[in-house]
Amino acid sequence: MIQRNMQLDEQGRLRHFLSIEGLKRALLVEILDLAESFAGVTEQTVKKVPLLRGKTIVNLFFESSTRTRTTFELAAKRLSADVLNLNITASATAKGETLLDTLRNLEAMHCDMFVVRHAESGAAHFIAANVAPHVHVVNAGDGRHAHPTQAMLDMFTIRRVKGEFAPLTVAIVGDILHSRVARSQIHALTTLGVNEVRVIGPKTLIPTAVETLGVHVFHDLRAGLKGADVVIALRLQNERMQGALLPSEHEYFQLYGLTEDKLAAAKPDAIVMHPGPINRGVEIASSVADGPQSVILQQVTHGIAVRMAVMAMAMGTVPLGEGKAA
Amino acid sequence: MIQRNMQLDEQGRLRHFLSIEGLKRALLVEILDLAESFAGVTEQTVKKVPLLRGKTIVNLFFESSTRTRTTFELAAKRLSADVLNLNITASATAKGETLLDTLRNLEAMHCDMFVVRHAESGAAHFIAANVAPHVHVVNAGDGRHAHPTQAMLDMFTIRRVKGEFAPLTVAIVGDILHSRVARSQIHALTTLGVNEVRVIGPKTLIPTAVETLGVHVFHDLRAGLKGADVVIALRLQNERMQGALLPSEHEYFQLYGLTEDKLAAAKPDAIVMHPGPINRGVEIASSVADGPQSVILQQVTHGIAVRMAVMAMAMGTVPLGEGKAA
Amino acid sequence: MIQRNMQLDEQGRLRHFLSIEGLKRALLVEILDLAESFAGVTEQTVKKVPLLRGKTIVNLFFESSTRTRTTFELAAKRLSADVLNLNITASATAKGETLLDTLRNLEAMHCDMFVVRHAESGAAHFIAANVAPHVHVVNAGDGRHAHPTQAMLDMFTIRRVKGEFAPLTVAIVGDILHSRVARSQIHALTTLGVNEVRVIGPKTLIPTAVETLGVHVFHDLRAGLKGADVVIALRLQNERMQGALLPSEHEYFQLYGLTEDKLAAAKPDAIVMHPGPINRGVEIASSVADGPQSVILQQVTHGIAVRMAVMAMAMGTVPLGEGKAA
Repeated sequence: MIQRNMQLDEQGRLRHFLSIEGLKRALLVEILDLAESFAGVTEQTVKKVPLLRGKTIVNLFFESSTRTRTTFELAAKRLSADVLNLNITASATAKGETLLDTLRNLEAMHCDMFVVRHAESGAAHFIAANVAPHVHVVNAGDGRHAHPTQAMLDMFTIRRVKGEFAPLTVAIVGDILHSRVARSQIHALTTLGVNEVRVIGPKTLIPTAVETLGVHVFHDLRAGLKGADVVIALRLQNERMQGALLPSEHEYFQLYGLTEDKLAAAKPDAIVMHPGPINRGVEIASSVADGPQSVILQQVTHGIAVRMAVMAMAMGTVPLGEGKAA
Repeated sequence: MIQRNMQLDEQGRLRHFLSIEGLKRALLVEILDLAESFAGVTEQTVKKVPLLRGKTIVNLFFESSTRTRTTFELAAKRLSADVLNLNITASATAKGETLLDTLRNLEAMHCDMFVVRHAESGAAHFIAANVAPHVHVVNAGDGRHAHPTQAMLDMFTIRRVKGEFAPLTVAIVGDILHSRVARSQIHALTTLGVNEVRVIGPKTLIPTAVETLGVHVFHDLRAGLKGADVVIALRLQNERMQGALLPSEHEYFQLYGLTEDKLAAAKPDAIVMHPGPINRGVEIASSVADGPQSVILQQVTHGIAVRMAVMAMAMGTVPLGEGKAA
Repeated sequence: MIQRNMQLDEQGRLRHFLSIEGLKRALLVEILDLAESFAGVTEQTVKKVPLLRGKTIVNLFFESSTRTRTTFELAAKRLSADVLNLNITASATAKGETLLDTLRNLEAMHCDMFVVRHAESGAAHFIAANVAPHVHVVNAGDGRHAHPTQAMLDMFTIRRVKGEFAPLTVAIVGDILHSRVARSQIHALTTLGVNEVRVIGPKTLIPTAVETLGVHVFHDLRAGLKGADVVIALRLQNERMQGALLPSEHEYFQLYGLTEDKLAAAKPDAIVMHPGPINRGVEIASSVADGPQSVILQQVTHGIAVRMAVMAMAMGTVPLGEGKAA
């Protein structure tokens, strides 16, 4: 018997949401299906559901990100939870308190969920390994490791447009090396059984041995896009790059920037995705970002519904999924 | 047929609230009447009404202002909306995202209203011209241009005390040149049909050709106050003045500071107003600010009700105003 | 007839909660009893009660403290109040507005309660002496003076574990001189009638004439702990100490740090408390902080219920206490 994934409880239900790795296909589909029901909610006039009324969700951000915090805050409020925003750098740790003491205190205040963003890989897992039984953890991005809710909203967007995963060829373009988004997308796409996942970028921005994740590596953009159904441009994470891995933004755009011309190598009905915020004229041309194949803003919309689904499932407040994913 | 005011929809109903300029009297009266009903709400024990339940209102502040943000936040919460406070300087634009991309993202998250504060004139109009059809914009102050909710709470306060606008002489004292508040007040007062609007200040702080707005200019305070029913002292916007338009705060107070002595030139029952925060001993003496003619704190109270009215009307959630203002 | 305590209304009911000093035993017991009913609330699935629905509570923090602000925010939200967080240093005072003008404005916006944290002793009393009749003030810590909600959550924790106050010997260890927590604890313990209160610390950290508060002074930790039922370690307030009152943290720990070895001098069933955040290895050893006698995290949990009780009583929204404490 293999060791139980720490994200799941004894019945195989979601308890924390830390990374896509190790989760079964049925569980990912359950998230997508529940998100589908919430996507309906966000289009109604009154968008709130009372599923998490009386619950307290803490945005525990050790790395600032207004955009991601905002989507989690909106998702939590639309589930009727109370939300507490804590910027930990500016807070208790300044008084010399350890991270674990901060966690213990928030637990003692009967907080029910921590949404964790941290610059170090593994931070959300560490926190999940150390919380009280009644507390749930959602990873909102840890170092270069994982950003699983981003990956799930991408999957949701792909399914909404393309219907089925099996026949799809998906190309991820850009700085794979530093991208927690790419890592989570690759795990989600392979788990959901797409036909082929490709990563495209300069040698300096592709992790060594990335093929072991089940992807094909391309260094030429047109070759990698050929026949693709889904093209995902990654943000050029200037702030996360050390040293001179790139000659210049201009040269990057020449080689790997997604333009209409280069996009023509993909299938005519290929969709273009980006996790945002976009650097126009760096990793993507405005004509593509704003063009008819772009689903970038749908991704943002779906982000609310998918985060509502993950939160509700982890909190055990939905009557779905009787151990299907175990 | 003249071009439709971008603040109104095709039925002539309020869609955005950007400036008083171009709005008809009937619409301003409609705002005041609705605010009157909410002013009742704020005096009850339970002050909330469920008009905007399930709606998300974003305070989009590009220029920090705790006081104004607080009044909008309270107004939104008393309408049962969810409120998101975004300080844009410290946020997405730091990551290189354009303003329009930030807007697109917030729209995609199904935010329903942007309350915009910006140091540049025209910012709220620019945003309103670029939002999705389901999004409403309220100007919370743009550069030197307009601060229409402040003007409407002033009108509300005047009407509560004086009853009718037609017989009134209103004197606005101080730095007219840099004041978005004065601009909006002048438009509101002339639209509501007061007898006379006067602006009083040193030549360096009166805009050229201000008479074209329908006001009379005075450089002598006592002469300008003579016979006034309403005296509005403006805040001396030190932070917005470039160069040496004034010799000193002390000399300003000597000439234009509102003292009991100088106020005696106005009618005995004249009321004294100020948009706040006040600089005691600069544009107004404490004995006047705290004196029996001052309605400065009533203005603050009315600010909540007026902002509730503007928000509810722009969101189309009140059954009033069937195109009356068109 | 003695002068009425400004914390009480004419019927002797709580109106503000500023310090323990001057409050009668019956009132403290009333707070503990009501907190007991809310402690139940925080263990339910849905933790909210609608007692303060429609009320606006302002966290008015002139000194930043994420932990204390968070507990008040959670307590207010669990009473269904709307919460406004104002960091006053970064706000209106920067524009030159006086403190009293800021208060007047918040009152005019129909805010119902100010939770005040300030670096100067007496700040909460000053504010309470100057607010409008409809506004209530809770002291969340003022200078070296008082931190009464902390003291009450400590009393609540002691009563939950020990049952009765009368037979208890309570030892407070550490920097008594700079501690508002210690001052409030001493008043609460003597008012509730414990057998003996001891303060233990180096001469430089014990206030002169502290015996007039009804406590016994010890400079030797083991002697002071002998026979104690409750041991309260205080945080070493490095940030509040001026000059060289201590040789070093290391030496402090040698003499006054609470270790298992030294704790053995107290009764075997003595409980260990700390207001947090703890400095491990300075005023308390990890083995004690995390050990079986520690109730430090229970204190945090009880802090929510006690603050709910104080807020609800001050707002007059509970049908208890018909002048019993007058």
